[in-house]
Amino acid sequence: MIVNGTHYRTVWLEDGSSPCVKIIDQRFLPHRFVVEELFSFNQMVEAVKEMHLRGAGLIGAAAAFGMYLAAHELRLSSNFDSQLHAMAERLMQTRPTAVNLAWAVNRQLSAIREVHSIDQKVEAARETALQIADEDAQNCRSIGLHGVDIIERISKAKRGEVVNVLTHCNAGWLAFVDYGTATAPIYEAHHRGVKIHVWVDETRPRNQGASLTAWELLAEGVPHTLIPDNAGGHLMQHGMVDLVITGADRITSNGDAANKIGTYLKALAAADNGIPFYIAAPSSSFDWSLTDGVGQIPIEQRHPDEVRYVSGLANGRVESVLICPSATPVANYGFDVTPARLIAGIITERGVCTASNESIQFIFPDKF
Amino acid sequence: MIVNGTHYRTVWLEDGSSPCVKIIDQRFLPHRFVVEELFSFNQMVEAVKEMHLRGAGLIGAAAAFGMYLAAHELRLSSNFDSQLHAMAERLMQTRPTAVNLAWAVNRQLSAIREVHSIDQKVEAARETALQIADEDAQNCRSIGLHGVDIIERISKAKRGEVVNVLTHCNAGWLAFVDYGTATAPIYEAHHRGVKIHVWVDETRPRNQGASLTAWELLAEGVPHTLIPDNAGGHLMQHGMVDLVITGADRITSNGDAANKIGTYLKALAAADNGIPFYIAAPSSSFDWSLTDGVGQIPIEQRHPDEVRYVSGLANGRVESVLICPSATPVANYGFDVTPARLIAGIITERGVCTASNESIQFIFPDKF
Repeated sequence: MIVNGTHYRTVWLEDGSSPCVKIIDQRFLPHRFVVEELFSFNQMVEAVKEMHLRGAGLIGAAAAFGMYLAAHELRLSSNFDSQLHAMAERLMQTRPTAVNLAWAVNRQLSAIREVHSIDQKVEAARETALQIADEDAQNCRSIGLHGVDIIERISKAKRGEVVNVLTHCNAGWLAFVDYGTATAPIYEAHHRGVKIHVWVDETRPRNQGASLTAWELLAEGVPHTLIPDNAGGHLMQHGMVDLVITGADRITSNGDAANKIGTYLKALAAADNGIPFYIAAPSSSFDWSLTDGVGQIPIEQRHPDEVRYVSGLANGRVESVLICPSATPVANYGFDVTPARLIAGIITERGVCTASNESIQFIFPDKF
Repeated sequence: MIVNGTHYRTVWLEDGSSPCVKIIDQRFLPHRFVVEELFSFNQMVEAVKEMHLRGAGLIGAAAAFGMYLAAHELRLSSNFDSQLHAMAERLMQTRPTAVNLAWAVNRQLSAIREVHSIDQKVEAARETALQIADEDAQNCRSIGLHGVDIIERISKAKRGEVVNVLTHCNAGWLAFVDYGTATAPIYEAHHRGVKIHVWVDETRPRNQGASLTAWELLAEGVPHTLIPDNAGGHLMQHGMVDLVITGADRITSNGDAANKIGTYLKALAAADNGIPFYIAAPSSSFDWSLTDGVGQIPIEQRHPDEVRYVSGLANGRVESVLICPSATPVANYGFDVTPARLIAGIITERGVCTASNESIQFIFPDKF
């Protein structure tokens, strides 16, 4: 997407005497646009764990580049394979809920296993990382083209009146390599001239909606309104939402979807008010082995200070303020699971399916 | 309740050559405990409008004291009645959703109408304000005694294991004159030695849960955990919530309840997981004339900066930080309506009724 007139992806490689992976450091958005240079595997682990970058697809692509950095660092090691596996394990521990991470790391391990010399392995890791990034962007583009049909149908039914879409967290291009998932149909509709307006959940505790989605939509000129996470139910009760689209961090083979904490509450409100609730996600976000989201998807718990402190701009600098008594205990679950029964459909790169084993198998027969 | 060893109410009168109404200025909690002195009607209007104080019962009591300040200021006026009515009107405009405000102002106007001399009118306003405050505290005490039965039943069914209660916003003693409504059964259970733990929704945008409810529970020694508003659904899916109790700002005669924005989402999650959802509120929070909460209760819209900025403690001072691009449009609805069908019961000063016209009429036959 375009930032200040320049086309950016969220992660890219600059080759050189030693490789450098560049990322948009999202911790400073929307107040400052910062590009971070990562020269080592350890720096990438830190960037993923401390959420310099985040989002299902981007975590996958970043992990793929991380594995290339690892392979490059190990090129003179006598223990290439075992050390690489240990590093892969470490990377997978950083964010336990997002399945794209494990998917990308495992794809790298397979690609590296297929060739024999160390030089070939390093080159395979490089090629695979670039491929995963390109595929991610392409998949998001396809999700946009499939998802826009849903928005155009609603627009037609409303005789061209504004279509109001609610989204939670950031499943925008900042969460992927480009385009985003939940936002891809929105951007496509906007480019086609469909009248659209987006309700942006601020998405506590880390406020990815307020800081990232609002920033993206503002940059793209898409009409939008920021709301507290608490507001969606009221808007839906009053006919102010036509459609909900969110991303997902892991989808089971029967269509249960883990996404940012609070998504389930919006799905309940949508169901209670007869509003279609869609998940937009590429096939890399499916965990084909699972059949019960609430029971089986591990839910990451994050540091309580993410809840205790809110960061934002004050006096020209990014500062954190304490919003509760310092002695108050805090719980901070990163995700929740929306059961398939609340999901109208899943928008994937291959088309839209219903949230059911049959429909998912129908469009992904090769995955079962 | 007790603050630093001293018993406080949230609003009280100090007589003198001219009357002074004292309030706990809640804008500085939990970081500083500040008592504000209000000497004029205008100061009280400002305090209610700018939320130096808030909460259904406290707004009512404060408005009653405001009417006394008004009557006292008008004691030498030749136009006592018409000026008093204009001031009453102004006070009622400050917070349109909370019915306690209009209820208290109208009760004052009736009391003042019943006597004839100006001196008698001023004295009637003083007596009525004190009476409303005392009744509010007494009603909350009764709500605690009725509501504790629900907690004790669950405790017994769990064979004495911890009862987990989730609450939204602050319907604690800071929202009333004393005891609170949603918290009254919790405090009573805690004093009786029932093992209890409270999940405290932080309650964006103003964070009354994080700043007020957490502070109250900490001061009273009630075990609790602060959570983002997004977390409740996940906790309920995993059996970590036994009971939800919130307050209400206006209840219709059929049991629909307006409360802080986001309450409806928690009621939906409770229903989806078979968890009882209770409203705790005194009869002064009922609007006997209404029969359709979503359609009829006016929902206050507040300033967008409440969403754009979050205030908290940084470097020893209370500061506000901007959490979104400054150009992003914001909507800020103060309340939502939970339909009666999602409410297991309403805990009132006269006992617990179901959220239905029949049951409400049964315990309040004199109101219909």
